[in-house]
Amino acid sequence: MENLSIGQYDLIYNAFSFGFATLAAATLFFWLGISQVKPQYKTALVVTGLVTFIAAYHYWRIGQSWSDAYTLVDGVHVPTEMAFNAAYRYVDWLLTVPLLLVELILVMSLTRSETVKRATSLGLAALLMVALGYPGEVSDSNNVRWLFGLLSMIPFLWIVYQLYVGLGTAIANQPENARGLVSLARNVVVVSWLFYPVVYFAGAIGLEGATATVIVEVGYTVADIIAKAGFGVLIYLIAVRKSEEPTQDGRAKAVPAE
Amino acid sequence: MENLSIGQYDLIYNAFSFGFATLAAATLFFWLGISQVKPQYKTALVVTGLVTFIAAYHYWRIGQSWSDAYTLVDGVHVPTEMAFNAAYRYVDWLLTVPLLLVELILVMSLTRSETVKRATSLGLAALLMVALGYPGEVSDSNNVRWLFGLLSMIPFLWIVYQLYVGLGTAIANQPENARGLVSLARNVVVVSWLFYPVVYFAGAIGLEGATATVIVEVGYTVADIIAKAGFGVLIYLIAVRKSEEPTQDGRAKAVPAE
Repeated sequence: MENLSIGQYDLIYNAFSFGFATLAAATLFFWLGISQVKPQYKTALVVTGLVTFIAAYHYWRIGQSWSDAYTLVDGVHVPTEMAFNAAYRYVDWLLTVPLLLVELILVMSLTRSETVKRATSLGLAALLMVALGYPGEVSDSNNVRWLFGLLSMIPFLWIVYQLYVGLGTAIANQPENARGLVSLARNVVVVSWLFYPVVYFAGAIGLEGATATVIVEVGYTVADIIAKAGFGVLIYLIAVRKSEEPTQDGRAKAVPAE
Repeated sequence: MENLSIGQYDLIYNAFSFGFATLAAATLFFWLGISQVKPQYKTALVVTGLVTFIAAYHYWRIGQSWSDAYTLVDGVHVPTEMAFNAAYRYVDWLLTVPLLLVELILVMSLTRSETVKRATSLGLAALLMVALGYPGEVSDSNNVRWLFGLLSMIPFLWIVYQLYVGLGTAIANQPENARGLVSLARNVVVVSWLFYPVVYFAGAIGLEGATATVIVEVGYTVADIIAKAGFGVLIYLIAVRKSEEPTQDGRAKAVPAE
């Protein structure tokens, strides 16, 4: 850990607080929307809110750990003995990244066996991807960071393949008023997840010191907000669209869920 | 209490935080699912969420107690005067272990008299099992640990007998689409509960020091997550399955709960 200027420390601290507020608000938005969708889409919104709930909890803890990890000495933030707990992010991802893929599968309303099969295989691949990243994240060696970072890309690429090829037909068979949104949600998963390796490898290409800390912490926070709250809004919109019934003039009509 | 390396201390700390996050998220999942099942299964989901709620509260407290129990001196975690409060686990189990068995009985929707009889006898046996374990857990003597550990196995074996023999007919009479899951839930109770004596007797077979602390704390945490959140997901799935109405073509159809 290195010294940080007041501006650098505050930028990261405020990013964490912003992350907590956004994710907590998103959680309430998704859960308050449950009554507005048809029964078969309720579980998708429950899980969408669980993801942001778990992430909000971890941003709260991350903010506390950040406060404990530095002390202000003569206008400079100096590391204390309490190291910043980077494991919170990985514990969070272990839970939330598989659930993010489950959200997408649930809102597609496939058959039960297809849902179980897809959710299980994608979830396990996501778990493996996160678990493989951790040893590299906490290592001081750039070689170890590269090794585990690249190993972690294998399940990532498999997930991308599944999302575009494995789920291709299922997405093409979505109702017309939701097909574009489901396809967009799939793209948001892949694009927002690309942030993570960029931030991860920023540490491996020799970027060091206070600037690297700012890039890593703010970068992961922005990526988490897009991948969880932003992606969740798309899941919500898909669930609402698919709960509408088409009227005779071709326009969709909202129906009460119960 | 012995000194712990930063890695050992952090592993346990992060396991407790992971336990809290998982159990809190599971609680919300079960309670948000209440509206999705038929009236006769709602109480099962209420109780399932109570178990994980009580456990989440205790993991929060356990995490705080863990922080208070150690202080960092020259890169080593040294015990403070505040001993880690192991009683939180037993207070938790006193409440949650009987309720876990009540969940299973409730989701089986037996007759009222059968439900009361089974829930009372299994709940009391579980209470006795937990209460008998505690004097051994806090004793410094291996003999006392063995004595109470073995005494505690008597109600445990009675519970296992009841789950396989006493409830055998009731499980065989479950609706076809839920029978496999009920049987699986029963097996998960027994298998996940076997973790506890293994961890418990790890202290009695002479495993000591920092490694024993890591095994005990991480082991109990993993067992709690499987026995409460994992088992709860099975109860949730059983309640959802049994709330479905079969359609003419034999496939189950989701029905709104209200």
